[in-house]
Amino acid sequence: MTETIQTQWLGNMAFEWEVNGHKVIIDAKENVGGENRGPQPKTFMLASLGGCTAMDVVAILKKMRITDDIEDFNVEVSGDLTEEHPKHFVKMHVKYIFKFKAGKTPELEKLEKAISLSEERYCGVSAVYRKAMELTSEIVIL
Amino acid sequence: MTETIQTQWLGNMAFEWEVNGHKVIIDAKENVGGENRGPQPKTFMLASLGGCTAMDVVAILKKMRITDDIEDFNVEVSGDLTEEHPKHFVKMHVKYIFKFKAGKTPELEKLEKAISLSEERYCGVSAVYRKAMELTSEIVIL
Repeated sequence: MTETIQTQWLGNMAFEWEVNGHKVIIDAKENVGGENRGPQPKTFMLASLGGCTAMDVVAILKKMRITDDIEDFNVEVSGDLTEEHPKHFVKMHVKYIFKFKAGKTPELEKLEKAISLSEERYCGVSAVYRKAMELTSEIVIL
Repeated sequence: MTETIQTQWLGNMAFEWEVNGHKVIIDAKENVGGENRGPQPKTFMLASLGGCTAMDVVAILKKMRITDDIEDFNVEVSGDLTEEHPKHFVKMHVKYIFKFKAGKTPELEKLEKAISLSEERYCGVSAVYRKAMELTSEIVIL
């Protein structure tokens, strides 16, 4: 299967992406000649990983019938960039942050199982990044 | 340098990214249990590459003083996905599509120079992807 996106120039340093029929404006920051009308494209490498694994985990937890116990779920992805050009990510760390509803006990083994299924079997973003850098993760229960 | 993004669960399969202070909603398509409120995260791997190299190329063409001659510029990125899980990109192709203003002659060597500077020196997204898959590109003049 082939997927295609468009990156349409809006003038100066701003562009509009069309991704799966949805539009997103990106721009450079003011200190490099942009107007910060939108986020920067390279940072979406982190977002792509966070979104991919977050959706996997929710889909698996739904099948395990525990999403109703979860009050809040956030996936935070941090990446370390090189100082030299091309400035690129050499390591990423994923934090899976869960808050359970009052009276509900987190079943840690199920969360670990869902995350390892995403990391090892379903997430196509980590499958690519793992070939190019170190990926680590942790679970945080608030 | 470290960069961080958030992927906040909105319920069902939808999430809200916070990237460089800007918010973007992502969602799964209806056929996999989502409501298609936003684009899908893995496709942003293509967008990240397109945006990164598009901004490099515009910045370099600005220094070459030829952006005023350009009526339209679009970067289209296509990626080939595996059929098997984890469904991941194994090849990407970047089309740099330029339209010049009436009476302006495209200076192909300058366009090629700007693109090769992005690919080889500045674009941190292609620097990572190149370690994991085949990347190709072409220039299209409309």
